[in-house]
Formats: sequence, C-alpha cells, structure tokens
Amino acid sequence: MATAKQAADFLKNARDVYILSHVYPDGDTLGSAFALCRMLQKMGKRAKVLCEHTPSPRYAFLQEGILEEDFSPETVVCVDVADESLLGSRLQSRFGGKIHLCIDHHASNVEYAGLNWIDSRAAATAEMIWELLPLLEVQGDPQIAACIFTGITTDTGCFRYSSTTPRTYRIAADLMEQGAKAGEINRAMFDTKTRSLMEIERRATDSMEFFYEDRCAVMAVTLEMIRLSGAGEDDLEGLPAIPRQVEGVLAGVTLREKKPGEFKISVRAQAPLNAAELCAIYGGGGHDTAGGCSLSGSLQQVREKMLEAVGRHFREKGIL
Amino acid sequence: MATAKQAADFLKNARDVYILSHVYPDGDTLGSAFALCRMLQKMGKRAKVLCEHTPSPRYAFLQEGILEEDFSPETVVCVDVADESLLGSRLQSRFGGKIHLCIDHHASNVEYAGLNWIDSRAAATAEMIWELLPLLEVQGDPQIAACIFTGITTDTGCFRYSSTTPRTYRIAADLMEQGAKAGEINRAMFDTKTRSLMEIERRATDSMEFFYEDRCAVMAVTLEMIRLSGAGEDDLEGLPAIPRQVEGVLAGVTLREKKPGEFKISVRAQAPLNAAELCAIYGGGGHDTAGGCSLSGSLQQVREKMLEAVGRHFREKGIL
Repeated sequence: MATAKQAADFLKNARDVYILSHVYPDGDTLGSAFALCRMLQKMGKRAKVLCEHTPSPRYAFLQEGILEEDFSPETVVCVDVADESLLGSRLQSRFGGKIHLCIDHHASNVEYAGLNWIDSRAAATAEMIWELLPLLEVQGDPQIAACIFTGITTDTGCFRYSSTTPRTYRIAADLMEQGAKAGEINRAMFDTKTRSLMEIERRATDSMEFFYEDRCAVMAVTLEMIRLSGAGEDDLEGLPAIPRQVEGVLAGVTLREKKPGEFKISVRAQAPLNAAELCAIYGGGGHDTAGGCSLSGSLQQVREKMLEAVGRHFREKGIL
Repeated sequence: MATAKQAADFLKNARDVYILSHVYPDGDTLGSAFALCRMLQKMGKRAKVLCEHTPSPRYAFLQEGILEEDFSPETVVCVDVADESLLGSRLQSRFGGKIHLCIDHHASNVEYAGLNWIDSRAAATAEMIWELLPLLEVQGDPQIAACIFTGITTDTGCFRYSSTTPRTYRIAADLMEQGAKAGEINRAMFDTKTRSLMEIERRATDSMEFFYEDRCAVMAVTLEMIRLSGAGEDDLEGLPAIPRQVEGVLAGVTLREKKPGEFKISVRAQAPLNAAELCAIYGGGGHDTAGGCSLSGSLQQVREKMLEAVGRHFREKGIL
C-alpha cells in the first residue's frame, strides 16, 4: 500500500496521463478525475479523463476549463475504482493489468495497480485528491475546488453519511475559500431531479404498502412504471432509499422488476434489523443497513415471499 | 446593537433565566434555546426553555440532560426571535416589553429587547450560541454540541443554503469533535419523513402539471388531500419547494386551499424570473426566489389565473 507522498512523487514524474473513472460515473469518480486532470495540466502535463459511460449532463460543469488534447498515454491512473472490472468492459480490455496508480477510498479495493494509495478513512476519493494539492505544489483554484467539493458532497449525501468526519467539514470550508460555490453545487446535486426521476418516484411511491404495524414498507418498481416514466438507470439508483425514510419503518423493501418475472430486491434496514441477514434468507447479502437478493415470480408472489422473510426476520429479532 | 462579549457579560451576571423560542419552533430556535439552557445550568444558574407551541417529537432529543426546575424568571432571553409577535400570543402577553436580551441572526430583527445581539452573517442563531461557549467559559459537551449542530444543519438545509459559510463548516467540524453525532442528526432531520408527510407529498406530486414547454410546474394541495393524508401544518411547510425541483422548471407554483374557494399561492422561481414580481401581479410579494399571493375561486379558476400571470411574467422576462 502506497502513501499520499509516494502517489504524489509518482505523479510529479509522470507524463501523458490518462485518468480512468468507474462505470456509471458518480460525482466522486468524476470530481476526483477532473480535479486531478486540471492539477496535472497546471503542472504542464498532458492529461485526460476517460470513462466507459458518458457522464450525466448534471456533471458537465466539472469539465469546465479542462484542455482537450489527443495523445497516447504513458501513465494510467484510476480514481475511485475499487476493482478493474468496475472500469467497464471496454476500458478494462484496453487498460486492465496496465494501471500504474490507483487512488481510492474503498475498503474493498483489491490493489490491482502498480502503486495503490488506498485510504478508507477518507469520506470520498476527492478528499484524497485534496491531500495531493500541496504535495504536488499546485495552487488551488475555483474550478479544482468545485470538482473536489462535488466529489465530497455527493459521496457523503451532502455531509449526511456516517463516513463524514470533522476533516470532511474542514476541507469543505477550505474549498469554499478557494472558490467552490458550495450552496450552488449542493442545490444542483440534491435539490434538482429530472422529470423522469420525478415521474418514477411518484409511481413507485404510489405503490408503497405498509405491513407489520407499519414497520415494513414495500415499494414496487415495475418495467411498466419505468417505461411510462422514461426513467434511466441514473433515475433508479436512489429509489430503494424511499421506503425506509418513512418514520417508524424498520425494513424498507423495493421490488424492482429486471425482466418479466424476475425481480431484484433491495432492502434498507434499521437496527435491530440486519439487511444482510434478511436477504440471506433468499441467498442474497449486503451489510447491516442495506442488502439485496433476487427472486422470480409475479409481483404478487415476490411481494409475498419477501413479506414472509421480513416477518421471520422480525420474529428472530424479537420485534413481532 | 450589542456585541457577543456584551451578551456574554450580561448572561454571566444573570440569574433565573427563561429562554423563549419562536412559534412553530424549528431546529434553530430549539437547538439554540436548549444549548443555552444547558450552558447556563452548567454555570450553576436556574434556566428553562419556553415555547408557545409544543415542539415536534423529532426535536425531543434536544432536551436530554436538561434539569427541569420550577422558578420565576428574573431574566428573560429570546433566541432566534426576530420580533416579539413571533413569540405567540400567550408568551407575548406575558413577556412582551420585558425581554432583557435577544440573540438572533435575522437581518429583519426589530431590536425589541434591552440588549440586542444580532448577527445576520451567522447562518443560524445556533452559530451565535457556539460563539458564547468560550465567552461564558463553559466546557462544550456532546449534548450542547448536538443542540448547536441541529440548529445549524436545519437552518442551512443540511449546509445547502447560500447562508452557509466556511465558518459554518468549521463549526460543524468542531461540534463533531465535541461529540455531536452529525450523521445521525442529519439523517433524523433530513432523511426521515412522517407517514402523513409521505402521503401528502405523493398526493401533491400526483397533481403536478407542466405548462409553457415544461418551464412551469403547478401543484395543488387541496383540503381533501390534506384530510386524506392526515397532514398537519408541519407536513405542509416544505411542499412549495417540490415543483421547482424538477429539472428545467423556472416557475414552481403551489396552490394550497386554505378554506373552500380560498387559495394561498406559493411561487418558487429561478432567474431570470422573479417570484416577488410574479406574485405582485395579484397583490402578493416576497423576494427573488420565493413569493406568495392569495386568490379566490375554484381550483380550476385559480390555476388558470396563475397560469395567466406566469405567462405574462415569462413574456416580460423574454422567455416565451
């Protein structure tokens, strides 16, 4: 495992750098990548960001001020990518086994690069990029600050998740002073939803039913609902959080139809429940607060199967 | 206008302190009041918090560790109360004209107390209470930190509003180090909704319609919807933000039925629109981003009147 200093020394000597993001890119992988890209460009190096999937237009502002150049890479760096397979098939087949440096905050990182700087105490990979600024002797600026702030705020759910540390807040303060428009970025990331997201949310919420003295909420996301809403994968990823948000709900269950008759189940649980244990009943897994499993059948059948599992888990935990 | 030092000196010499919150108490007025109450109790003084309305159960944790004592006040302090009328009629008739110290961050504060410490640069009154800690030579503790953190995070919409400054983030970091469970508080304040809020949100969202090339969204909140949802005033206050959250919407209009045939209209606007100007068409007012007015008629009639005003405002701003 490498240190920040080793990563910085490597980057100081690097030339013609490709920076790779993970599939279905989020604010942290993109914010980290574009911040690093701009930092390297400010050091007089050629650098560019590559990603398997086109980023959502909401992240377009991260690319502002980046010089677009064509060149072949001499150095390949991954940011926020825990495993090479998360590069996506095209990038993996091109760069797999040839990554020089990996910068990542996932504890699950499998250390696939030549040099692996992994810090699972960081709330976001962007916090690590922040650490690089003085080590690379690059002057911060509003654009770099905006990229790093975006990575941090999106990966902490606007400073809400338990990964948020005092250091996270202090970095946010410094980034504001370097010109990051924190309020504007937070509103763009958290107070704006696409029409299709609004449409799928309202259909999904309409389907919500409550069971076991309202301590379990079950929500359906069917292919029909997705079609009628015009929802894409981006719109669907946040839905499983909704049922658990209702006060008093200990188990929030989302039944997402992947193909006709095939469902991916997402469970969000609150202590003393354990989402991983609950999902293990049907061969799934996860961790304490979030888990998943797969089930076949009609929506009605799948809902009943999950309610059985929830009831059993409630009884095991002494709730019913 | 008094300084923090003057307010602290006054409090050091004060005895038997009543701390008053504003009507329909929010996280800032309550967090500030209970933090100050605990600080004064730690200084060996008798102190208690009074509020016209019973706080929502979600704020119950703020009172933990407060000693409940019966005594007559020698000193009366208001926190986060811009005007005596905001105390509510009972507290105002009892304490109006007899407030010794007012601590508030509202620029609109009318300086009604003997000593008025007003700081409109503070993102929350709780930021000012934070400033008092060293001045009163009180040792911070997890409970005081939780109260102050709650005030700050609720008044900044989880560090989202433009009132958030680098100082706000730095105070949050310090509060975490003093034991505030930031993640837990943020989730309780922002990731949890009552069943009745969820019910009114889904009914209101179902009513949403889009006009003028989807740049205007109109949502209804009728008495029938409120009744069916079991929603209270607490549940309704956040609804007007919903229509404007949809990407591309410049004017979000919420038509709330107050009595049969009487509507309170809330407008949320994005530049170049101006909510105050738009609402002024029907004798209302507000500021750039949020405004309101009142209209009579059926839901259909009121919707049409508002659409007319929106269309006119769009044309005035060169949008249509």
